Amino acid sequence: MVVTHRETGEQICVGLEVQALPSIRPKMEAVEAIGADFVVGPLVHPRYERGVSEPDVSSDAPRIERNDPFTRSDMELSSSEWSSGFIGKLSPWIRCDSSSRRLSLMSEAALMQEIAFAKHLALRAVLTPPITRGCSGANFARALLSSLSLNPGMNIWVRVPLEGSVGGNPDDSDLSYSREEGTPDVWEDWNRLSTLCDGHPSLGVALELPANLPKNALERWNGEPVCALLVNANAFVLNRHGFPVLPRRHQEFVRQMFKYKCYIAVSGRSNSNSEGDRGAQQYIQYLGYLFGKQPGSTEAERFEAPYQDFLQSPLQPLADNLESNVYEVFEKDPVKYVRYREAVAKYLETRKGEDVVIMVLGAGRGPLVKSCLLASQETGVRVKIYAVEKNVNAVVTLRTLAASPAWSNVEVIATDMRVWIPQEKADLVVSELLGSFGDNELSPECLDGASKCLKENGVSIPASYTSFLAPLSSSKLRNEVRALGESTAVMETPYVVKIHSGFEISPSKECFTFTHPKKESTPRDNSRYAKLTFNPSESSMLTGLAGYFEAVLYDDVMISIRPESFSEGMFSWFPLYFPLRTPLPVRTSSEVEVHIWRKCSPSQVWYEWCITEPNITAIHNPNGRSYSMSLG
Amino acid sequence: MVVTHRETGEQICVGLEVQALPSIRPKMEAVEAIGADFVVGPLVHPRYERGVSEPDVSSDAPRIERNDPFTRSDMELSSSEWSSGFIGKLSPWIRCDSSSRRLSLMSEAALMQEIAFAKHLALRAVLTPPITRGCSGANFARALLSSLSLNPGMNIWVRVPLEGSVGGNPDDSDLSYSREEGTPDVWEDWNRLSTLCDGHPSLGVALELPANLPKNALERWNGEPVCALLVNANAFVLNRHGFPVLPRRHQEFVRQMFKYKCYIAVSGRSNSNSEGDRGAQQYIQYLGYLFGKQPGSTEAERFEAPYQDFLQSPLQPLADNLESNVYEVFEKDPVKYVRYREAVAKYLETRKGEDVVIMVLGAGRGPLVKSCLLASQETGVRVKIYAVEKNVNAVVTLRTLAASPAWSNVEVIATDMRVWIPQEKADLVVSELLGSFGDNELSPECLDGASKCLKENGVSIPASYTSFLAPLSSSKLRNEVRALGESTAVMETPYVVKIHSGFEISPSKECFTFTHPKKESTPRDNSRYAKLTFNPSESSMLTGLAGYFEAVLYDDVMISIRPESFSEGMFSWFPLYFPLRTPLPVRTSSEVEVHIWRKCSPSQVWYEWCITEPNITAIHNPNGRSYSMSLG
Repeated sequence: MVVTHRETGEQICVGLEVQALPSIRPKMEAVEAIGADFVVGPLVHPRYERGVSEPDVSSDAPRIERNDPFTRSDMELSSSEWSSGFIGKLSPWIRCDSSSRRLSLMSEAALMQEIAFAKHLALRAVLTPPITRGCSGANFARALLSSLSLNPGMNIWVRVPLEGSVGGNPDDSDLSYSREEGTPDVWEDWNRLSTLCDGHPSLGVALELPANLPKNALERWNGEPVCALLVNANAFVLNRHGFPVLPRRHQEFVRQMFKYKCYIAVSGRSNSNSEGDRGAQQYIQYLGYLFGKQPGSTEAERFEAPYQDFLQSPLQPLADNLESNVYEVFEKDPVKYVRYREAVAKYLETRKGEDVVIMVLGAGRGPLVKSCLLASQETGVRVKIYAVEKNVNAVVTLRTLAASPAWSNVEVIATDMRVWIPQEKADLVVSELLGSFGDNELSPECLDGASKCLKENGVSIPASYTSFLAPLSSSKLRNEVRALGESTAVMETPYVVKIHSGFEISPSKECFTFTHPKKESTPRDNSRYAKLTFNPSESSMLTGLAGYFEAVLYDDVMISIRPESFSEGMFSWFPLYFPLRTPLPVRTSSEVEVHIWRKCSPSQVWYEWCITEPNITAIHNPNGRSYSMSLG
Repeated sequence: MVVTHRETGEQICVGLEVQALPSIRPKMEAVEAIGADFVVGPLVHPRYERGVSEPDVSSDAPRIERNDPFTRSDMELSSSEWSSGFIGKLSPWIRCDSSSRRLSLMSEAALMQEIAFAKHLALRAVLTPPITRGCSGANFARALLSSLSLNPGMNIWVRVPLEGSVGGNPDDSDLSYSREEGTPDVWEDWNRLSTLCDGHPSLGVALELPANLPKNALERWNGEPVCALLVNANAFVLNRHGFPVLPRRHQEFVRQMFKYKCYIAVSGRSNSNSEGDRGAQQYIQYLGYLFGKQPGSTEAERFEAPYQDFLQSPLQPLADNLESNVYEVFEKDPVKYVRYREAVAKYLETRKGEDVVIMVLGAGRGPLVKSCLLASQETGVRVKIYAVEKNVNAVVTLRTLAASPAWSNVEVIATDMRVWIPQEKADLVVSELLGSFGDNELSPECLDGASKCLKENGVSIPASYTSFLAPLSSSKLRNEVRALGESTAVMETPYVVKIHSGFEISPSKECFTFTHPKKESTPRDNSRYAKLTFNPSESSMLTGLAGYFEAVLYDDVMISIRPESFSEGMFSWFPLYFPLRTPLPVRTSSEVEVHIWRKCSPSQVWYEWCITEPNITAIHNPNGRSYSMSLG
């Protein structure tokens, strides 16, 4: 049953895991009949296992050289049935890290053979046995990597049982683990495997949800490539109408994972036995219901959807002229210009009865001018507006607008605000030169250059802006950066990105603040340095830093893209992502110490960043070698 | 005084550090008069310091805008005097990591200005103030990196006082360090700085040798870019003739550093005061004497000198035909063929009175055939020799030799040993198909292919060979690898290299063994896996793994390139270096766990490697993607 959300049109697949598949077609049909969209089942005929469980000790180097077929024929289903309807499980006896050389080599050979067969069938994915100390060592990782390289495009999902307490194989007791005593953490097992495989983009997680969900540390999985949820039938409870439902925390977690378009399968056997297929059918229907009753997406969400985890180079509106379509997109923001209007109105309230000179610095195609005009109407305070814009193409729009009667008190000034010498000074300068990280589109430099336009005791909207930084774990963003190339340059460039698959290891902290006009106490210089210390809530892999900003427009009127204070509905900015060249493992007990610099030369401004706790990284982007913002 | 070794012609420079330089030319002349080759002195006029020690608190952003010259004119010395005779010290008050924003910014500005001036003078290097918690934080590192990027080619030597116990600046008590309580370790301070600077190739160490040398951990500096030694005058003691000499351990360490062609300077003031320049003169003369009395280099050392830390791709003699000059070089080895002759003779002793059939597999231009003929002469055992060689060019040489009477019992077989079907089988096969890591020139595969040539109970020389692996710290090799390019491929290729600048973190351990002919107990398969655990003797940076081999030719006749059992004088093999993509910090308390695989496909053989303790790295060279040895 491919479940389609009636409002959003989004789909999820709900399936059923089966333990045995004596014959595949009847089972597939039975499963389809109860509404499941796919089957998770053994890839290889279980009889094949016997050749290994009774090993021929005299033969040293195992080779798979049997003449009988090692599994059912690919003809039993059509190609499309295989690829859309079947997810194959690797043989459960595979122990690549066994201390028995024979079993380890045989396991590797079987793993390679089975994954190659899955590729032959063009399956959506293969599922490994549950990750344990016994099957997630270096040999297993090596064999997976080898398979991934020989079968490009094949997805391997590593089964991760969320309870975390899995018994090791006595056979493999020699595998040493750097895990704190008494705190088994299945994430560590996954992370070990993922690190050995260098975060291979085709390696995913199939999270197994038991009846008892772990108390915390679930958020971490937002940073990992979770591709499937296996919801144990045991987890379902009967509601007061006698229907099976998931407990609240399970519901929340499943909903959290819906956004990653995970495959969802019901797995294992229910406690309330004898239900059989009818039980499975109810579970599957319930999961579909859970998906369908999610709220539809908001306008902002629909706008953002195509940009999820998509890396963009930050705009450089000072150096490059924005294009018409870019203005058009940003002008549609349903929040930003309302807040500007409120801020201007709030200021004008303090100037009742006076004539107020406003300069809109960086007027673009006029939206801030409109906000000012509306605020003037609202408050009845008369204004004279200078609309200053350096982009000669946008000036065409401004001059067209200025020809209309509504704009009779607006004068268009086609120049760079930094060089303009005005005839009269302003009571209020209004600008929106902010980037995702606040100052990263050079608002400080532009407004410094325009400070000569402002009367003494004049006011700037925004009055101040502050950048924020949070340590982030995102295997997805790491791979997106690597997909751009192998050069150091791509690894130390900040990217604008709607972070979708990622986990903030610790809440963001204040970084740099700029105030306009400059106060006596603030540095005259626009270079900055901040050292921030974070206390991670969970062990995780630090892949980079997420940058946000908060701006005080006037008084208590704010805009923010910081998660904690986000201006709901505003879509003009996505966060800025500062990658790390090499991910850094972080433990709950360790602090994360981040250094970031904003540096200025006469022609450019750039950031440099590094980590000094719990480990030391190189300083990224030294002297702006990989990325800088041009002042001219 | 440029000291020239009378035998080797090698040179070192011995100089003098001075605390003040009121006027430079008279001082330079005085110093030259006492035999010093260069002066280490303040780069900037000390008066300039006053502008900072009495800061103008009202001015927030410091700018160096004084009109008086900040130091002496560059005209005081000629260009060549500056560059060969003067090493400039940065101002001692520089505190880039001060919590006072003003002092930190002023320090950075001064540092940038002074290094730029040193570049203007084309100095050999500038010397930083002693590394301490107060001056080796992230801001100092950032400023150094920035200077290095703005002044390409400028060398910066970081002054590292070897005693290690340096008082922090109270001003900088907020700098957090991940150093164990009670174990101050100046190497950690250096390593922190070096890591932040990403091991920049122009960043060196100037080691300061105090009167009391630390008890251990001196070897570690072999892995670091030590460019200068500053020997404190206090360290000198009077010998029984009343002349100042260095204590034994100082002597040993200074000798150890001679091989890196360090600059050496006498620093500080002697305890026995009132000696003045005469004391300095004696110290300088003594250091020259110490250098001159070193033993001259051996033949092997002279051969190796140009290859020090020079990365080479391993030979692939199976896939590529060696060229004549390569044969010529290896045939000059003064040890290898002697050992082969001994081994063959020892075998022939057991066959007195019999006729023995020998096959030389991979005969090249005939040196092993000659060893066999000499052994036959020595023992009086008659032999029939088949010289098997696949390289048709080398066969020309062999056939020429075989035409001579001395080779009357030698038959040349121009074919690949793996396909040759001999008329009679051999009592003894002799081969030398070894690479630096033993099996890495595919000796196992070649000898397996030729096993059909050997009689039952026949003997192979070599009887077995074993590879060894040691964790290595070498900033030099790390930079050599990076100089090859930014691609992953260069980071996961093993290189043949005469390791000169490097430190074995722990002694090498046994890795893979191959025995010929194969015993029942050894795997028939030539793939291998080893997990090795090392216990580091000192904290250091793991940059890669050093690979060696030991071979048993026959009975107790061995050849080895493993440091512990090295066949003195043998120069046919340099070690194999397996780099790590990212250096890994290693602590004394932590184990280093290394995994290495030898993998085989029908057409190739390759290694993969990774680290799992103390941290996890990605598996390097998965599926031989970056480097493999071709079987064809």
